[in-house]
Amino acid sequence: MGAGRGSYAALREEALAANLEIPKLSLAILTWGNASAYDPKKGVFAIKPSGVEYADLRERDMVLVDLEGKIVEGSLRPSSDTKTHQVLYREFEGIRGVCHTHSTFATAWAQTRRPIPCLGTTHADQVAGPVPCTKMLGAAEVERDYELGTGELIARTLAGKKALETPMILVAGHGPFSWGASAMKAVHYAAALEEVAHLAFITSMLDAKAASLPDYVVRKHFERKHGAQAYYGQGGK
Amino acid sequence: MGAGRGSYAALREEALAANLEIPKLSLAILTWGNASAYDPKKGVFAIKPSGVEYADLRERDMVLVDLEGKIVEGSLRPSSDTKTHQVLYREFEGIRGVCHTHSTFATAWAQTRRPIPCLGTTHADQVAGPVPCTKMLGAAEVERDYELGTGELIARTLAGKKALETPMILVAGHGPFSWGASAMKAVHYAAALEEVAHLAFITSMLDAKAASLPDYVVRKHFERKHGAQAYYGQGGK
Amino acid sequence: MGAGRGSYAALREEALAANLEIPKLSLAILTWGNASAYDPKKGVFAIKPSGVEYADLRERDMVLVDLEGKIVEGSLRPSSDTKTHQVLYREFEGIRGVCHTHSTFATAWAQTRRPIPCLGTTHADQVAGPVPCTKMLGAAEVERDYELGTGELIARTLAGKKALETPMILVAGHGPFSWGASAMKAVHYAAALEEVAHLAFITSMLDAKAASLPDYVVRKHFERKHGAQAYYGQGGK
Amino acid sequence: MGAGRGSYAALREEALAANLEIPKLSLAILTWGNASAYDPKKGVFAIKPSGVEYADLRERDMVLVDLEGKIVEGSLRPSSDTKTHQVLYREFEGIRGVCHTHSTFATAWAQTRRPIPCLGTTHADQVAGPVPCTKMLGAAEVERDYELGTGELIARTLAGKKALETPMILVAGHGPFSWGASAMKAVHYAAALEEVAHLAFITSMLDAKAASLPDYVVRKHFERKHGAQAYYGQGGK
Repeated sequence: MGAGRGSYAALREEALAANLEIPKLSLAILTWGNASAYDPKKGVFAIKPSGVEYADLRERDMVLVDLEGKIVEGSLRPSSDTKTHQVLYREFEGIRGVCHTHSTFATAWAQTRRPIPCLGTTHADQVAGPVPCTKMLGAAEVERDYELGTGELIARTLAGKKALETPMILVAGHGPFSWGASAMKAVHYAAALEEVAHLAFITSMLDAKAASLPDYVVRKHFERKHGAQAYYGQGGK
Repeated sequence: MGAGRGSYAALREEALAANLEIPKLSLAILTWGNASAYDPKKGVFAIKPSGVEYADLRERDMVLVDLEGKIVEGSLRPSSDTKTHQVLYREFEGIRGVCHTHSTFATAWAQTRRPIPCLGTTHADQVAGPVPCTKMLGAAEVERDYELGTGELIARTLAGKKALETPMILVAGHGPFSWGASAMKAVHYAAALEEVAHLAFITSMLDAKAASLPDYVVRKHFERKHGAQAYYGQGGK
Repeated sequence: MGAGRGSYAALREEALAANLEIPKLSLAILTWGNASAYDPKKGVFAIKPSGVEYADLRERDMVLVDLEGKIVEGSLRPSSDTKTHQVLYREFEGIRGVCHTHSTFATAWAQTRRPIPCLGTTHADQVAGPVPCTKMLGAAEVERDYELGTGELIARTLAGKKALETPMILVAGHGPFSWGASAMKAVHYAAALEEVAHLAFITSMLDAKAASLPDYVVRKHFERKHGAQAYYGQGGK
Repeated sequence: MGAGRGSYAALREEALAANLEIPKLSLAILTWGNASAYDPKKGVFAIKPSGVEYADLRERDMVLVDLEGKIVEGSLRPSSDTKTHQVLYREFEGIRGVCHTHSTFATAWAQTRRPIPCLGTTHADQVAGPVPCTKMLGAAEVERDYELGTGELIARTLAGKKALETPMILVAGHGPFSWGASAMKAVHYAAALEEVAHLAFITSMLDAKAASLPDYVVRKHFERKHGAQAYYGQGGK
């Protein structure tokens, strides 16, 4: 890890761009959201410093952290949620970005401590089933190491699923986390989750017994965007 | 169809302008919406390429497609919903633009699989009756050709109505489609539908038994805007 | 009324500024709102032309109309709601501006055909009691002259009240109208009404039996802003 | 208090910046919000003038008022809520800024006259328990001195709590007040309260019996941001 400052510039830039997308997509007010970008070869991720306003963020403010939580580079204190990001990079194969926000509708669903049912194709375009919701973290886990425990709770809840096929979750009582093949994709999944949560809210208000989308439509939509024969987009996922 | 590139420039421009109106009117986040412009003399429509962000769209990115679904011109892959547009141009007389979005309230109504009741004059200014909602597409239709099937489902649901007098529909479990005498008008109907869906949501929440607008007011509003003696606007419809 | 074009310039300017405030305050999408400015000495008001987009509006597009509905000046067709404005200027003493929008929450309340109860001081700052809602216009009135009938219906509903003390109303099944001592004030009352309608919606959702504000608080708030001893603002009402 | 104009320049600047943040964070329409900045050494606070639009506000418009309500400097009439600010500076130790808005969701909760339950960590990051709601002010208090009475009511409701640990309250039937270690922090607490109120609204709609966040999570979140061992932010609170 003795590399010069220059060697992390691209990672810091990627993290900065992803963080700036958060307020641009109205996913956070004040300083309430963070994103990180991971380089699996270096085993290091770049993350937003804690409590800094988006308008003031610069590339050099990003903090470089390794998977043991050691600060590799940076003079600011990293996001208070850093350990949660760290666990996700360690546990989830292939992810290169993580995003956490308190976006309104996703957070409200998290406060109900329930998964978001898959009620339409907008949802199925992201995840082929409900957006999972964790259990509430126990008092002992909160005491021991809250942010680490949150990461482990997320990993436990997704056990047996491919992380890149369920790129989002609600942490009960807290809010959403998302991830993806890049930091920007993690933020875009956060935006998609917020919209899906909003849609499910309105639908549930209009019809408390709204039926889930039939599985054959769920699969069709998920596959046309993410499957081996995907034909959404221009080929580069 | 051996015409030079120049011959479709106006159609591509019209499609581009209509697509750019989608995020401007807050009808889609990320890349979740598409519009097309149709030239009935050439039997060709210009449509948004799939998965390209609005900020990056240029006129030359628009894809030209004929009513058999053949790409006439363009190097990008067209919207994954292209076949649905294609069916609508084939089935609906006089339309020259189609728009599909996942706008929030219209999509949530689609997720309830119910038509939007006509509760006020804002609605009657667009359609003289409920905004129809299709049935859910069957598994066999989804398997055979999902997007073509969606277009046929829309056409079947509107059978017997003049398409230009019912310029919008909800596809159950999916979202809204709209059309009109131009691509821009199709997008403006998408905006009107979103607003009408929002109004109907709030009204239904305040009064679950809210009555439909009396038919004599529905006709008055629809006719003053779209009838033979229309006096809304400046004469050019 | 043989005055030269120049003599109405100030009135046209006032009407233009008020109309441009409508989209700025998010009170209308597309072309769905209009405001007018009245000069009682000339007996003439300037109103938005019908169906013209706000971005295209220029001072010279405003249409000058007298209280008999005669177009005094202007080459465009006036708002389809012109006769409603006309009746209000004739019936309501002291008003110099009228505004009509389809703003979301006010229109949804109008669709429920119920007055908006006075649930808080934000509301009492505008009107000392519920925002009234008209009855539904009858079929004969719609047939005879819809827009004139709408104006008469509003006047009938407010009979016995000072128009400047109840500067807003809901027309059942349609939407809000507001007025004031200037065109700009009429638009600002439209914005206040939209917010009041939004607040009453949320409050009603949280507590279907939410109590009205006690009358002594209603009077206090209304009087501190509009009474003889008003101390809100800088003295010029 | 015979100091020259220059001596309050910094305080006026702080008050101006805080007031301009109100519309920027969408916490008020028109002129419906105010913030003040307090200098405990001088015993004077700078507050927004009454009824002036944010776009027209300049530093020199801020009004300087002492804790007896005497205008120390300024040619405009101060906010009609000035006496409420005054009482809070007198009663709440350590606060240097106060903010009052009619922000939508916080005001709607105030209209229900109920505290906002602590349903998630977004809330616990601000206050370690419900956001309190006052009783309705009595007729005699409204008659005697409404704004002073409002300040005393707030102080009474919070009796026994540290003001800086419960930096926000709902005044029943009216709306939110917030305060903090600076005028800007008071405004940011107003923004946080609005978001918390929005989250609690959605959560309550989805689940009328939504459970409060367990106390061990409430404490953890409040302490990690505000406790002696806080690790959120960069150290300067």
